[in-house]
This record gives sequence, C-alpha cells and structure tokens, in this order.
Amino acid sequence: MAKTSPHSITLPKGFRAAGTTCGIKPSGRPDMALIVADRPCAAAAVFTKNRLPGAPVIAGKRHLRDGRAQAIVINAGVANDATGQEGIDNAITTCKLVTEQLAERHGIKLKYRDVVPSSTGVIGPQLPMDKITRGVTNLVKKLARGPKPDRDASLGIMTTDLVPKPGNATVKLGNKTVRLGGIAKGSGMISPNLATMLVFITTDVAISPVMLKLALKQATAASFNRISVDQHTSPSDTVAILASGLAGNRTITVPGKAMHDFTEKLTDLCNNLAYQIVKDGEGATRVFHVAVTGARSEGHADRVGKAVVDSPLVKTAVHGCDPNWGRIVTAAGYSGAPINPDTMSLTIGRTRPKQVCVFKQGVPNKLTMPQNRRLEAAMKQKDVYFNLDLGQGKASATWLGCDLSREYIRINADYTT
Amino acid sequence: MAKTSPHSITLPKGFRAAGTTCGIKPSGRPDMALIVADRPCAAAAVFTKNRLPGAPVIAGKRHLRDGRAQAIVINAGVANDATGQEGIDNAITTCKLVTEQLAERHGIKLKYRDVVPSSTGVIGPQLPMDKITRGVTNLVKKLARGPKPDRDASLGIMTTDLVPKPGNATVKLGNKTVRLGGIAKGSGMISPNLATMLVFITTDVAISPVMLKLALKQATAASFNRISVDQHTSPSDTVAILASGLAGNRTITVPGKAMHDFTEKLTDLCNNLAYQIVKDGEGATRVFHVAVTGARSEGHADRVGKAVVDSPLVKTAVHGCDPNWGRIVTAAGYSGAPINPDTMSLTIGRTRPKQVCVFKQGVPNKLTMPQNRRLEAAMKQKDVYFNLDLGQGKASATWLGCDLSREYIRINADYTT
Repeated sequence: MAKTSPHSITLPKGFRAAGTTCGIKPSGRPDMALIVADRPCAAAAVFTKNRLPGAPVIAGKRHLRDGRAQAIVINAGVANDATGQEGIDNAITTCKLVTEQLAERHGIKLKYRDVVPSSTGVIGPQLPMDKITRGVTNLVKKLARGPKPDRDASLGIMTTDLVPKPGNATVKLGNKTVRLGGIAKGSGMISPNLATMLVFITTDVAISPVMLKLALKQATAASFNRISVDQHTSPSDTVAILASGLAGNRTITVPGKAMHDFTEKLTDLCNNLAYQIVKDGEGATRVFHVAVTGARSEGHADRVGKAVVDSPLVKTAVHGCDPNWGRIVTAAGYSGAPINPDTMSLTIGRTRPKQVCVFKQGVPNKLTMPQNRRLEAAMKQKDVYFNLDLGQGKASATWLGCDLSREYIRINADYTT
Repeated sequence: MAKTSPHSITLPKGFRAAGTTCGIKPSGRPDMALIVADRPCAAAAVFTKNRLPGAPVIAGKRHLRDGRAQAIVINAGVANDATGQEGIDNAITTCKLVTEQLAERHGIKLKYRDVVPSSTGVIGPQLPMDKITRGVTNLVKKLARGPKPDRDASLGIMTTDLVPKPGNATVKLGNKTVRLGGIAKGSGMISPNLATMLVFITTDVAISPVMLKLALKQATAASFNRISVDQHTSPSDTVAILASGLAGNRTITVPGKAMHDFTEKLTDLCNNLAYQIVKDGEGATRVFHVAVTGARSEGHADRVGKAVVDSPLVKTAVHGCDPNWGRIVTAAGYSGAPINPDTMSLTIGRTRPKQVCVFKQGVPNKLTMPQNRRLEAAMKQKDVYFNLDLGQGKASATWLGCDLSREYIRINADYTT
C-alpha cells in the first residue's frame, strides 16, 4: 500500500489546486475545492450506480463524453441531488463560472464542458449560487502547486470526515517516471442526509481517454467497489481522473506492459484511498479485511465479501472484538453465492504464525488454549483479518468493512433530537 | 390483522402442546416446546435459504418429504448448526425420543419421521442430549390443550425475545369453521450467535399436503419474506404448519374459493406474527411500514422494499424520528429495480388526512408549516408509514422494518466485554 504524503493532486506535472470556504456549511469549515490542469487532459470517471443520480453526476457524465476535461470543481455542504432541471442548470453555471474566472485571471481558455462539477451534502436544496460564485472567484485566485494547496483541496471536499485523505504513487514507464496523486472524501453523514464517496485523481501519464477509462474501471473494481461503510450507495459517488500527459512517456493507447504497470499503480493508489475511507467511516473504530479465496468466480467471491462486510451482526461482532465466526460463515451462506459448507474454511488473523483456523470444511475447529489466546489477540487489533476459503476454485476478492458502533447511531439518528 | 389471544396452537381441533425448562439455557428460562396432533396431519414447511442450513433443517426437510407429520419438537439455547453428521444424528434421536415417550405415555404410535425437529441458539455446540432427553419426557407428560400449554410452548421457543408471540384466526369454509393458531419467535441475539425466526402453525382445516404447501408458500411470501430486522438470514429459519383435518370442511385438493379463503386467513395470521417479530426486533423501539406501489412487477416492489428496510441510514432516521426522505428515495435508487425518479413520489404517514407528500415525481415538495407539523407527528408514532409510489405500473408490496438503536449494538457487540 502506498505511503501517504502531504503532496497529492499537484504532485503529477501540470496541475494546480485550491480549497476555500464559501459559506455553504453552517459550521464555517472549508467547503469548496478546484483542480485545474495546465492543458487539456485525457479524462475519465466512474459514477454512482444509484438510479437517482445527483445533478452534478448527470452534468459530469455529459462533460466527460468526449474523454477530455481540464478542471474539476467540487463543493461540500449541498449535494445538488433531487433538484430537477434547476439543479442541472446550477451545476453547469458553476462550470461556466470556473471557465470565466480562469480566462480572466490566468488567460486559460476552456469550454465549460471541460469542467467536471461535483457536489456532496444535503439532498434536496438548490446550490446557493451567490456563495458558489464567491467561492469560485476565491478558488481561481488561490490556484497553486504544492502540498499546501493539495491539503486545502482535500479539506474543501470533506463533510464529516474526521481527517483529510490524500495519497500518491509513482511508477516507471520505460525510462520515464509517472506520478499519480489523489484526494478522497469518505462516509461522513451530511445533516440531514447522505454519505458520499468522492475521489479525484490526477496523473501526468500520457494515455488515451479509452485506456484511461479502462484503467480507472479496473482500479475501481478492485478497490472502491470492495468497501462498504453502510451499504447505502450515494447518488453522488464519483471517482474522476485527469491525465495531463506531461510525464513524457510513450502515450498508452493499447494494452501492454505500460498499461499493466500504470493500472497496477493506479489500483494501489485507489486501495490506499479506499482504506482511508473505511478507516474514517462513520463511528468506525476498526477496519476488517475479508479475503475470500477459493471461489469459482470473482463474482462469487464478491458476493460473499459484500455479504460479510454489510452484515450488521459481523460489524457489531468486530466492534465487540468477538471472534463470532458463526456470523461470518452464515453471511456467506445467504450471500447468494453457491457455497458448500463442506468445502469452506475460515481463518482469523493476518499472517500464518498468528492465524487461527476456526471453521474447517464445514465443522468448527476445536481450539487449544494458545489458539484461543491468539484468536482473542487477532480480534483486538485495529485491523482484523478474516480469510474465508470457499474451497471451490481459484478466484478471490478482498473486501474492507468497518465496525458498527453506538457512534454510528449517534451520528445518524440523533442530530434532530 | 387478527387479534392476538392467549389461545393459539391448540385452538384448532386435534392439537396438544407443552413447554418446559430442561436446562439448556444458562439463564434457567424455558427452552423446549412440543406440539402434537391427535392424528397424522398434512404438513408443510418453508425453510431458510441459507446455504449452511442447521442439522434440524436438514432432518426436517427429509421428514416432511411425504407431506405428513404429527409432531414438532423445538429447543432453544443451542441451534444445532454447523455440527456435521453428529448434529443430524442428534436431531433424529430427539425425534425418536418423542415417539418413544408418546407411545409409552399416551399410546400414540408414530414414526420418528412424522416428528419435525427444530432448534435455535448458539452455533457450533452439539445438543446436550441428556438435557434433551429429560426435556422430552417432561414435555410429553405435560401435553395438554388450552391457553396455558399454548403459552408454555410459546415461551419454550423464545431466545432473547422480550415477549411471547401468539396468534390465531378463524375462517368459514362452507358452513364449517376452520381454526388456525400460531406461535413465533423472533430476532433475539443468541449469545454468542445468531438470531433465528421460528414459526409454528396449526390448523384443523382438511387439506391435501400439496395445497397446504402452496398456501404456506403464498402466505410466507407475503409476510415473513417481507420483514427484516438485520438482514442476516439465519441458518435455522423455519415456518412449519400442521393441518389436522378435524374442522370437517370438504378437503381442499384444488385451487378455488375454499383454498383462496384459507390462504387469505393464513396470510393474515402470518402477517400478525411477522409484525410481532419485527416489533420485538433486537433493540427496536418502532416499526416502519414501507408500502411500495406503482411497480412494474412485484419483484421490483420487493427489491425496493427490502433495500429501504435494510438501509442502516433509514433505520437510524426512523430511530431519530427524522423525516429524512432523501435516504428512502436513494435506497430505492440503489435497490436494483429500474426506478425512474421522474415518476417516483414518497408520502409519509398512515392515512390521507395525516399524510404528507415529501417527494413528488422527482422533486422535493415544498412543505407548508402545517404539513411540517403533520410530518413531525407522523415520524413520532410507534408505527411509521412510508408510501413509495414508483409510478411505473400496478404491482405493490409492503415491507416491515424496525429502527436501529444503541440497544442493538449493546446486544450484539457488548456481551463479551
């Protein structure tokens, strides 16, 4: 997993960023961010599969249809979801404000369709366009490179996240170094509404839009699509990437070694950000890793992994440090995957000397005293590891979940009382 | 919904019941129950779809293959799940103990395959057969008719249920009165393991096993399959029915008015028991009813209903009395049903004068002050009603869920600490 550093989205060549406070959030915390590339980028995004997408998702899809973009503008505090045509108009106006200000202050000429809008926060209300206008002006004024603007931007997209979530990675393609940077916001409740996952990634790799989209899809499938805080898919979820091409590598236009290496590193970065999102999940005190192996297909492994990380009974067991393997194997049992208990085994703990097999091919494993002690120790870690071997094939998938605590209930139930 | 009365499973002609304490539960609470018919019955059951069924489920399926049974023996405290061949042998031995005792004490001769075994409790341990043996002897000794043995039996199947769950119903078929009675146990956590739903129904209707199975499937689909406490399908879930045929009605062997009327009443009884199960869900303080209408198919309505009742964000909103409609419509959005926001509307509240439409064909409804007051009042009821009209067709389904409280976390996380 890539180490986090304060330098993230402006680490790749050709990007500037900014964050600001425009007053959308009653708390007075930062609530807007902007990422701008020096030149048009290959661009791609993966959006929520929710059938009620927010207005920025609808507009963003249109703007990315040509596989090109040069800026991303984000606000937190109001999600611009369920806002009808007025909401879509406001999202587009926000993009236009960005292009106007960029032309005026920096002489950068781009079309509003090269700006990707993104919002997170309360569902229902329209964007406060007066505040957005002031915010865009400020953001364009502050655009810069370096750890400071990166951090400002990562703060500007937060909702009730407790910490900002930056990440970076580098990869050698031929003799050129390609840089990647990313910021994420995770599952924080937005009074009175939803959590949303937003991820923005920059890179200076030279790549065609088609291959960029493919790389992003693969990386997302193996990372953000395998985490769950509370299984509620937000209508705003977005993972967007801009590639400036300034690394000087031979442009990736076909599958091959460069594509493979870039995708692998992009996946690492996404896994890093995904882990940070789960760790900062609402009320979370620990992360659990569910490695499903021995599946007949990756689809089966995913069904089992998802059922386990979504089970409130597993989540509360993790919260209580309880090695309650019955909950895990029976979650696999109702996942919809064609499980056979007689070939299934469950091991708890990260690595071999400390691992304990609790359920072996359909029957509970009788544990010795030292095994019970190891099991207890494994469950008390901040990171808990479950390894579920289905014993049916060679496919696998690892899912990440967080525990379910009283704090989750407090955050999500009590703000009206 | 049928009124509950203390008289349940021995209200139909031809049944006796008993409950006892055999010492499986450390708490010393009742932990066994027995239902015996005077003569062989048409019998049917619907079992868990979990791919790791408990030993009693495996044995019970075999015993019911001929559509006949005469007794049901249940224990609480140990689920006899994940116990391998030894567990299956123990379930069968329990049935044999019942037949031996019934022959000895009451001169009732039946095969062990006419007894349906059922268990709920901890996953993993084998049944304590010494205690089970004493328990069966006691149960057979105590067999009787009337509200007292009914109540004893309903207590003997409880786990952490706070209250017993009896129900009854009657229906006229021709000039004959047919009686139905049922007892249920709901979602109570069984230290250190799973919740399980068990329902046992008796009736004196004369009916063929094939039609009885059909009626039970229909009734279950419209009731127990539309409730969720925490979406974790137990490996022991069972709904079993015995029909003594003593009501004297013309035996139901084909679809028609009698079958329709009987199925309708059986569904009412199942809905009554299902409601009691949700109401007594772990940590539940209120029940919410999700009526999904205007769906293209019942399958779509079910997907939407299930997504809404399983959403932790909806469950916490209900707990906090928060009319957080964004969480409901977006849960519909990720349900997998082909939702169209532009035709979707959400109304909160039970009946017309007190109902408030909060989301109308894709846009939030601007509420007046009196409407806001009505909305607030609707959310504070013990029973909260959401009516989600998809605006796409004529199919519908109503789901029941309960709120998610700190008490749920306490029950499921804290017993080890």
